[in-house]
Amino acid sequence: MNHIFFQICEWIGTAAFAVSGAMVAIDKGTDLFGVLFLAVVTALGGGTLRDMIIGHFPPRMFTNFQYLLLAAVCALIVFGVARLLKDRYIRNEKRIEQIDNVFDAIGLGIFAVSGARIGLEAGFADNGFLVTFLGMTTAVGGGMIRDVLLQKIPFVLKKRVYAVAAIAGALTYWVLETCGAASTLAYGIGWAVTVALRLMATVFKWNLPRAIDL
Amino acid sequence: MNHIFFQICEWIGTAAFAVSGAMVAIDKGTDLFGVLFLAVVTALGGGTLRDMIIGHFPPRMFTNFQYLLLAAVCALIVFGVARLLKDRYIRNEKRIEQIDNVFDAIGLGIFAVSGARIGLEAGFADNGFLVTFLGMTTAVGGGMIRDVLLQKIPFVLKKRVYAVAAIAGALTYWVLETCGAASTLAYGIGWAVTVALRLMATVFKWNLPRAIDL
Amino acid sequence: MNHIFFQICEWIGTAAFAVSGAMVAIDKGTDLFGVLFLAVVTALGGGTLRDMIIGHFPPRMFTNFQYLLLAAVCALIVFGVARLLKDRYIRNEKRIEQIDNVFDAIGLGIFAVSGARIGLEAGFADNGFLVTFLGMTTAVGGGMIRDVLLQKIPFVLKKRVYAVAAIAGALTYWVLETCGAASTLAYGIGWAVTVALRLMATVFKWNLPRAIDL
Repeated sequence: MNHIFFQICEWIGTAAFAVSGAMVAIDKGTDLFGVLFLAVVTALGGGTLRDMIIGHFPPRMFTNFQYLLLAAVCALIVFGVARLLKDRYIRNEKRIEQIDNVFDAIGLGIFAVSGARIGLEAGFADNGFLVTFLGMTTAVGGGMIRDVLLQKIPFVLKKRVYAVAAIAGALTYWVLETCGAASTLAYGIGWAVTVALRLMATVFKWNLPRAIDL
Repeated sequence: MNHIFFQICEWIGTAAFAVSGAMVAIDKGTDLFGVLFLAVVTALGGGTLRDMIIGHFPPRMFTNFQYLLLAAVCALIVFGVARLLKDRYIRNEKRIEQIDNVFDAIGLGIFAVSGARIGLEAGFADNGFLVTFLGMTTAVGGGMIRDVLLQKIPFVLKKRVYAVAAIAGALTYWVLETCGAASTLAYGIGWAVTVALRLMATVFKWNLPRAIDL
Repeated sequence: MNHIFFQICEWIGTAAFAVSGAMVAIDKGTDLFGVLFLAVVTALGGGTLRDMIIGHFPPRMFTNFQYLLLAAVCALIVFGVARLLKDRYIRNEKRIEQIDNVFDAIGLGIFAVSGARIGLEAGFADNGFLVTFLGMTTAVGGGMIRDVLLQKIPFVLKKRVYAVAAIAGALTYWVLETCGAASTLAYGIGWAVTVALRLMATVFKWNLPRAIDL
């Protein structure tokens, strides 16, 4: 029962990140392969980094294809929609960014807690820092690799409390699990913390302080 | 006998990619260390990524020095030639790009099948996706790391059917091996598929479709 | 006794690199999280790459928090100082670069020998190339990842004999250890070789040759 719940959540997160990754790739004018590749990198790159950190080889994306297939299908749909809409796709840039932000926040929350959960399952329950870091890496790693490949400074270094939201959600999940809360409850609350922080930061334009305003 | 054949092929691939990497580095104006470093990264980076994905530590380049030595010697030769030719090297940019394209296609084909072959040897024969991915990674990974280090958008995201050619060759090799073909035959046909696709794409200016022409 | 000596050296190296990383991040205008993140990446990224190459999972930074904590505290101090000085921080760019160079050279030397030492401890004493490469990776890897994230061509490809100094120090350490010298002596001489090479290269403006001056 729990297993199916986690499964469905990961599918949603993968789809959300794949859509977001494909949209960024189309924006940068890559071809069909580029759109597929960057959607897959965005959706599965963070989990692959996480698996490499905990020494799980080959990383899960190579032994469980459902996520890859799902990401590819999502990328194809976005590609098709953008091709159909053409000019209307470009003209509505603001709307598209808003849609992207919501998809991104949902995926961020799911991957932050699911990454932390895999840390627990791998036997690191007593290492709260590693568990939290695995959650953050799963959540922000894919977008980071995508941005490096596309020659952008990773938004995680600039976007409002992006990584901080992932850290807060993963840490909340770990604390609740450690305190003996039900797994699905801890998962849900951790997820909600990340999404709420991320969306509030977008709406209220929160920023972390800078040393010097250039 | 087969072993020697594969060995010689890998030497050729390593030399081809090292030459190509050194030429890109010289173009970007790096110093002697940069030329050596980027030639080695281009020639051995893909195989190192492949080894990390399948959990082979330390990666082969650190325990079998012949490839590193070969790449370094090739880089030194290219460095010396460019230094001798000077202006003539710069003025013949178009010719140089053509030479680079041929070297690159040869290396691409060899690394696509040799990466897939190492996947089979590591016991993943029943996972055609992983085997194909290992071939692609071995073939395009080194150039990708080099481009990221040199602040270029990896050509794999833009160059005509570059990664697709590697995927086709690796997949062909895996299918033939799985169907029981002789290893050297499967290797040769997989290689030819990649090289043919790549060169034809260059000559006929094939492109994958884009969602929106910017 | 030796153990405490190596420990203290690594603390100094970590602090030096964290200060250097935080200064680069402030220069680029990242927020507080970016400064912390990039200081940690600069200080611990090289050692993490080294651990991944030798198959030590999870990498040490996730199981031994003292280095992470130290890097974070250093980053916070630099952040606070820059915030206090403001304009004076910017106006003294040249002085800051000089300070950064000294910190950087000290860290470079320590990490070059400490990375090589970990290679010996991991059982690769008979593989001088791998040991030297591990020293170089530990020394230059963190700065390289930071530069890629900040969209700069890694200085290791451009800065005067940067990686060469790390290689020389690590190799010296390995040779001395192999010849039976006392560990702390080998460590100290290896460190001195790197720092001396690096500082002399800065003072005397040494450069490696280029193929073509563009």
